[in-house]
Amino acid sequence: MTVVKSTLPEDARRVAGDALQSTLVDLLGLSLTGKQAHWNIVGPRFRSIHLQLDEVVATAREYADTVAERSAALGLPPDGRPETIASAFTLPGPKEGWVRDSEVVEVMVESLEAAIKRLRERIEATEKADPVTQDLLIGITAELEKQRWMFDAENWPREH
Amino acid sequence: MTVVKSTLPEDARRVAGDALQSTLVDLLGLSLTGKQAHWNIVGPRFRSIHLQLDEVVATAREYADTVAERSAALGLPPDGRPETIASAFTLPGPKEGWVRDSEVVEVMVESLEAAIKRLRERIEATEKADPVTQDLLIGITAELEKQRWMFDAENWPREH
Amino acid sequence: MTVVKSTLPEDARRVAGDALQSTLVDLLGLSLTGKQAHWNIVGPRFRSIHLQLDEVVATAREYADTVAERSAALGLPPDGRPETIASAFTLPGPKEGWVRDSEVVEVMVESLEAAIKRLRERIEATEKADPVTQDLLIGITAELEKQRWMFDAENWPREH
Amino acid sequence: MTVVKSTLPEDARRVAGDALQSTLVDLLGLSLTGKQAHWNIVGPRFRSIHLQLDEVVATAREYADTVAERSAALGLPPDGRPETIASAFTLPGPKEGWVRDSEVVEVMVESLEAAIKRLRERIEATEKADPVTQDLLIGITAELEKQRWMFDAENWPREH
Amino acid sequence: MTVVKSTLPEDARRVAGDALQSTLVDLLGLSLTGKQAHWNIVGPRFRSIHLQLDEVVATAREYADTVAERSAALGLPPDGRPETIASAFTLPGPKEGWVRDSEVVEVMVESLEAAIKRLRERIEATEKADPVTQDLLIGITAELEKQRWMFDAENWPREH
Amino acid sequence: MTVVKSTLPEDARRVAGDALQSTLVDLLGLSLTGKQAHWNIVGPRFRSIHLQLDEVVATAREYADTVAERSAALGLPPDGRPETIASAFTLPGPKEGWVRDSEVVEVMVESLEAAIKRLRERIEATEKADPVTQDLLIGITAELEKQRWMFDAENWPREH
Amino acid sequence: MTVVKSTLPEDARRVAGDALQSTLVDLLGLSLTGKQAHWNIVGPRFRSIHLQLDEVVATAREYADTVAERSAALGLPPDGRPETIASAFTLPGPKEGWVRDSEVVEVMVESLEAAIKRLRERIEATEKADPVTQDLLIGITAELEKQRWMFDAENWPREH
Amino acid sequence: MTVVKSTLPEDARRVAGDALQSTLVDLLGLSLTGKQAHWNIVGPRFRSIHLQLDEVVATAREYADTVAERSAALGLPPDGRPETIASAFTLPGPKEGWVRDSEVVEVMVESLEAAIKRLRERIEATEKADPVTQDLLIGITAELEKQRWMFDAENWPREH
Amino acid sequence: MTVVKSTLPEDARRVAGDALQSTLVDLLGLSLTGKQAHWNIVGPRFRSIHLQLDEVVATAREYADTVAERSAALGLPPDGRPETIASAFTLPGPKEGWVRDSEVVEVMVESLEAAIKRLRERIEATEKADPVTQDLLIGITAELEKQRWMFDAENWPREH
Amino acid sequence: MTVVKSTLPEDARRVAGDALQSTLVDLLGLSLTGKQAHWNIVGPRFRSIHLQLDEVVATAREYADTVAERSAALGLPPDGRPETIASAFTLPGPKEGWVRDSEVVEVMVESLEAAIKRLRERIEATEKADPVTQDLLIGITAELEKQRWMFDAENWPREH
Amino acid sequence: MTVVKSTLPEDARRVAGDALQSTLVDLLGLSLTGKQAHWNIVGPRFRSIHLQLDEVVATAREYADTVAERSAALGLPPDGRPETIASAFTLPGPKEGWVRDSEVVEVMVESLEAAIKRLRERIEATEKADPVTQDLLIGITAELEKQRWMFDAENWPREH
Amino acid sequence: MTVVKSTLPEDARRVAGDALQSTLVDLLGLSLTGKQAHWNIVGPRFRSIHLQLDEVVATAREYADTVAERSAALGLPPDGRPETIASAFTLPGPKEGWVRDSEVVEVMVESLEAAIKRLRERIEATEKADPVTQDLLIGITAELEKQRWMFDAENWPREH
Repeated sequence: MTVVKSTLPEDARRVAGDALQSTLVDLLGLSLTGKQAHWNIVGPRFRSIHLQLDEVVATAREYADTVAERSAALGLPPDGRPETIASAFTLPGPKEGWVRDSEVVEVMVESLEAAIKRLRERIEATEKADPVTQDLLIGITAELEKQRWMFDAENWPREH
Repeated sequence: MTVVKSTLPEDARRVAGDALQSTLVDLLGLSLTGKQAHWNIVGPRFRSIHLQLDEVVATAREYADTVAERSAALGLPPDGRPETIASAFTLPGPKEGWVRDSEVVEVMVESLEAAIKRLRERIEATEKADPVTQDLLIGITAELEKQRWMFDAENWPREH
Repeated sequence: MTVVKSTLPEDARRVAGDALQSTLVDLLGLSLTGKQAHWNIVGPRFRSIHLQLDEVVATAREYADTVAERSAALGLPPDGRPETIASAFTLPGPKEGWVRDSEVVEVMVESLEAAIKRLRERIEATEKADPVTQDLLIGITAELEKQRWMFDAENWPREH
Repeated sequence: MTVVKSTLPEDARRVAGDALQSTLVDLLGLSLTGKQAHWNIVGPRFRSIHLQLDEVVATAREYADTVAERSAALGLPPDGRPETIASAFTLPGPKEGWVRDSEVVEVMVESLEAAIKRLRERIEATEKADPVTQDLLIGITAELEKQRWMFDAENWPREH
Repeated sequence: MTVVKSTLPEDARRVAGDALQSTLVDLLGLSLTGKQAHWNIVGPRFRSIHLQLDEVVATAREYADTVAERSAALGLPPDGRPETIASAFTLPGPKEGWVRDSEVVEVMVESLEAAIKRLRERIEATEKADPVTQDLLIGITAELEKQRWMFDAENWPREH
Repeated sequence: MTVVKSTLPEDARRVAGDALQSTLVDLLGLSLTGKQAHWNIVGPRFRSIHLQLDEVVATAREYADTVAERSAALGLPPDGRPETIASAFTLPGPKEGWVRDSEVVEVMVESLEAAIKRLRERIEATEKADPVTQDLLIGITAELEKQRWMFDAENWPREH
Repeated sequence: MTVVKSTLPEDARRVAGDALQSTLVDLLGLSLTGKQAHWNIVGPRFRSIHLQLDEVVATAREYADTVAERSAALGLPPDGRPETIASAFTLPGPKEGWVRDSEVVEVMVESLEAAIKRLRERIEATEKADPVTQDLLIGITAELEKQRWMFDAENWPREH
Repeated sequence: MTVVKSTLPEDARRVAGDALQSTLVDLLGLSLTGKQAHWNIVGPRFRSIHLQLDEVVATAREYADTVAERSAALGLPPDGRPETIASAFTLPGPKEGWVRDSEVVEVMVESLEAAIKRLRERIEATEKADPVTQDLLIGITAELEKQRWMFDAENWPREH
Repeated sequence: MTVVKSTLPEDARRVAGDALQSTLVDLLGLSLTGKQAHWNIVGPRFRSIHLQLDEVVATAREYADTVAERSAALGLPPDGRPETIASAFTLPGPKEGWVRDSEVVEVMVESLEAAIKRLRERIEATEKADPVTQDLLIGITAELEKQRWMFDAENWPREH
Repeated sequence: MTVVKSTLPEDARRVAGDALQSTLVDLLGLSLTGKQAHWNIVGPRFRSIHLQLDEVVATAREYADTVAERSAALGLPPDGRPETIASAFTLPGPKEGWVRDSEVVEVMVESLEAAIKRLRERIEATEKADPVTQDLLIGITAELEKQRWMFDAENWPREH
Repeated sequence: MTVVKSTLPEDARRVAGDALQSTLVDLLGLSLTGKQAHWNIVGPRFRSIHLQLDEVVATAREYADTVAERSAALGLPPDGRPETIASAFTLPGPKEGWVRDSEVVEVMVESLEAAIKRLRERIEATEKADPVTQDLLIGITAELEKQRWMFDAENWPREH
Repeated sequence: MTVVKSTLPEDARRVAGDALQSTLVDLLGLSLTGKQAHWNIVGPRFRSIHLQLDEVVATAREYADTVAERSAALGLPPDGRPETIASAFTLPGPKEGWVRDSEVVEVMVESLEAAIKRLRERIEATEKADPVTQDLLIGITAELEKQRWMFDAENWPREH
């Protein structure tokens, strides 16, 4: 017996569900790597980027909640358990220990770029399947692209 | 060369650092399993426990931040990366998929009990090493014991 | 003479106008049946669902206002008079008198499901006619699907 | 078996219940016709009266809630379903479509006058039956008389 | 010599004073028994009723303050000392130790019913003596009757 | 031609109107004498009473507005012009120039006592004429009696 | 013996004191005539000007307080008693009874113009005597000139 | 070397960039002409429209910021310099000097209509190029159409 | 069967439980005697101490809640029923009827001194048994010692 | 016929009017160039200066409003249309496209310096003509000098 | 090389700089002596003056910040180091240890009087040099004269 | 005669008193040197550290107040007069005049390190004497260690 029923036909639900589950993993992972950088950053730009990272984390957490609840609303139980994130999360993040401020900026640009690229694919995939899910993914992309620009603008002139 | 200097002697710093790092993992893990339950709970008590779980998550996130920053303040870079949590987190959590409300209550009681037991050991261990760290752990314990009682009171009469 | 001019060509305006007028009736009706349930619910889950219903009502009222003002903005006077709602409203609602809590949950799931089904048809109908109206309907659907999930999760295991 | 018990003897309860039920219908109806006017008003005083109508609606909604909960508190399930309002609501309201600002002012004066007249009769009727209900009706009358004055002052010099 | 003078003649003052003093005892006692239940409740509805009880306590405390200050304003020193409450308070309350959620609901219904009954007698008694005091007692009754309904609705179907 | 129509018959309106107009003069006058004392008080209790007087003034201003708008709502234009207050205001107030703190307390007790006495007569007069106006006067009396008590308690042991 | 000492020489204090006392009378009088108009205005612009007048009153009351406390700070007891205002206030105000909206606008323009003219003379008079008092009068003038413009812009095209 | 990298391919970026740059100019220009009207309006509806214009300005400023940051996020430096606005802004606005209230309403209707027409073309143009940008333009259109309706409703019966 | 389980061994739990239960009685009793003084104080310092007493009551109520919930968290049902307070409360409080301001100050100093003395003994008793409970008692002591100082400073030069 | 009358003689009004009109152009221009820099800045200090620039813009916008309304209050219609700013604005601003952070700081120092120099001349010019206008210009100068210092302090050691 | 450039010619800058530096010392010193009195006051007026002193301290701190930043804005580094205050501060303050309430009032009157006298000299000195600095000093004087009056009014009848 | 009595025996009181008095001096001194740096800092990191220093000052001021009131609560009058700070304060601080940003960071690290070292000694000293005082010192240390880390992380790679 179905626990929570869906308002979508089976096919559409699977497409939307996959897009939401992988977005959930990206956002939860990003909220952890963002905090890791927030705590371990060192260098003259410490305070400025320390605060900026907390905005990334707040964004990631808030959207993760919306994405997971959207998945549940479609009748698909979302999976955000520690082991799931550890095995499915693929975005780059800060290495262990203290990290220089300029390295933090670079790794955030890369990480957000990778997340955006994956989101744009899901926007396309969900257009027919579920415009409601697509609209949510568009909103997340807009926000992450804004965050990416800010780190990229801060990353100039690039060292590497 | 030391990156961030410590205000504690080496021995004390190691004891405090270990206590803080393992507390960090427990709290970050708890924030993930708490959200997992928040999203996947079903049953007549859905709304009531759905809201209660968000308070657990808010508590866990806030203390995780304080614990990690205390570790950094002692010159020890905290480690909250996804892979670290996945390998080091040992508290019980909800299984995959939808979970019945009474099961959620039970698993939260168990998970909080395990976390409290570990915290009480660290309170003892840090008494000499660093009363400042000990004071923080006492505060976390008080809050988690309150949360545990609320789930336990809700868990009565126990099914198992 | 036209009173308020439209920014859409006549055909598109009619399509968007129909979608908005029927959505307005659904939302105003839902705000009344939600309140009816809010006042007449009895049973052990009284308080929890009593509060949840007020969130449905607040959502319905707020979106009804946006939908009616969008209709006016397109040059079509919206119709939300008591007699219009009474004759055009078709979603199921609570029966007269006190209603058991589990019945309230069931009728809310059914009512929201019916509303969502009708909204998804209007999303499709307005895609070409007016993407601005479509975007509004997508937002309403996302919110109602979230509310539906919460009642559905609460409705488990189903009695019927 | 009685579902919700009353704190009043049967006779008093019937008198108070009738007064509350008909007040509920007047207020819910007024909240719908007030919104109808809020959306469909045109003319040079559009903005000023558009805002004023929202205050009428907010007042009507808030008192409707208090009245319905008072009825429930007396053990009488209130009835605010769409079909009930449509059949029992008798106050005048705006006609379909765009309405000139001066006509809106006039119809609001008439509608509030009719509501107040009915309320004053209920104040008298409930004096012996239930002073608590009477006190609530007195409060509603004070507020509606204030709203009526404001529209009446705005209606001068009268066109008809 | 009179310490604080009264604005009422002696007879009226005695009637109003008696009504206020016994209401004060009921409300202070209710604030204590409400808290007792808030802390000692167990069972699946723990959280929902735990929160509801705090609203009863907040209401009782706020009105106790108004009632005591009204008594002082009439030149009669109010008496809310522990020994006075213990000897004069007669409303039923929770027994010692943990209490099952359904029993809490029942005892609250009984306690509020008894308080309301006494208030209605005082409303009648003060009508001639002091309409200002009567108006305050009417307001308290309205609020307690609303609280009583909520517990009664929650108490259905009744076990006993 | 009547400018603002009344919802009361002519007789009742005159009684209510007289009660409201004389209350308006008392409250506006009190707001001026309260401020006069607020500015001119001297003595060791300066700060404490300086603040207390501002609460009297705030109360008087707020009720003056409600009273005047109630009069307008009954179709009677209220009169709060400087010359009207000067000729009709009869409550005692502080003399010209600096005033000792204990004298301020005494004059406030007297002034509030006189105002309350007049209000109680109007409460009786308006009972039949207009229970809505009576209810407003009862509320004002409750507040002024509370303020009077506070000054009277502060006035003890009395010097004269 | 001086009650409150001044920080100014005798001559300067008299000049500043006179300027402050007459400004106090103008502002208190304006706060009364502004309210009178606020309550008695009728006509199609009722609501818009009713609200605007309350901003004039709020401004007048706030500056009256500052002006009176400045006078006290200079060792001169301010005089804002009803009889003082009645005898010393000379600005035009609304006549008794209901007043047409366009007449209210005109009388406000005249009243503010007269107040500003008097303030500009006091600004000149206090320049040498006390720049602190002058600075306060400049601030009041700026605010009243802004209010005057708003009524004047509303007054166009002028009827007379 | 590219300063800020884009997350879009070159073609898509150019289309989105053009749409954003011309929207930026329209919004910044509108924020200036809206303020011009806010300051220079005269006539009996002064206050009402004076306030309404500030809402247009607030909307225009807020969206201008979002649009410019979206452009930067796509790697295209936005251009909002005074000379750019002056040469590229083409929407109608108020003439120099005082402007009659009815003329202000008319010019705002025309200006918003022109802005909306241009936005609808850009919504179409960006659909394939960048759904994220399209979504932002849809949101702006919804808001400007609402503002246009309000001025249009106020503009009736039209003088020309 | 245990209802709520404890996270402490039996011995420690008994020690902590006793300390918490007697602290609960002291705080609830203090909240009642503090209010009693708040209502019955007379004398020139009425207002100042009337307000100060409300801070004592707020503190006592807030800590009573924390203490009772801590007891519950340790598996010990707290007892705050009226009869328990009446029989177990031993701190001095104001006598019946009006009380002179200087006497209020004195009785508050004595009452707080007695409470602090008892708290310091419990701090010592709980050090080994439960550092979490000890930490809570330390916090309460700090706050009550601050309150005591303020009354003591106000009590000088002492009359007795 | 004069539209809005002035409270100043013709000569004084012209001097004050010129000072206000040119200040308005400077502030509106500054609000546009500040935003331009806010969007186009790149470099390691991106975030810090990005935020600082928004404070400049907020200041410029708020004072522009005050200045324009002061001009209107003096009967002189202010001119802030796009074409006026483009032709009359002479302060330096950022060039087109991305701008390095250190260049932004330098251009802000220069721009604010130029604005301050012009303001100081107008302060002198308006001293006799209108002390109210002068007082406003003094306030603006204080704020811009503070902003200039902050950029100047940030500009050290200077590169050029 | 100049670090922060000035917007004033050298002579004017020196005059303004001296006035600001000595005002800074007075205000920082006053914030310390005000706190000293806040902590050490004893006597029946303890609470009232304890609170009043905190307002003096808040005022002194806020203006000290504005004064120091104005100095920096003029290119003159302000000096608020402990040793500077200790050597340059000349206003009277409370002696060591507990201080009687009436003595506190007296010393505050003296201290504020001395501060005001010095400020009035600086107002004169800076009139030509820098009207912006003068305006700031006028504002500080107004505030301190208000504080002085309040202590002086409280100081009556004077003991010495 | 003792002015304010202590709740501690004489020996314990002396130990706690010494710890509190020297902590008070450190915190008040830190609040002054922090502000000095806040005003005089120059260099590219100006804004970021300027803001960070204000958080240090706010922390220092708030804890200074708590420490001084704790000392008073123990019957020991705290001493925070300017001359006391100047003679007893030993922490390093910024030199006179403008200070380079990197130097500010270094001196803050040193100053906080010295303060922390002294606090840790006092934590040990007060353990037996007064656990309430010890708890306060632990809280201050936690906060200052957090501030120290932030400056230290910002200080990397160290120049010296």
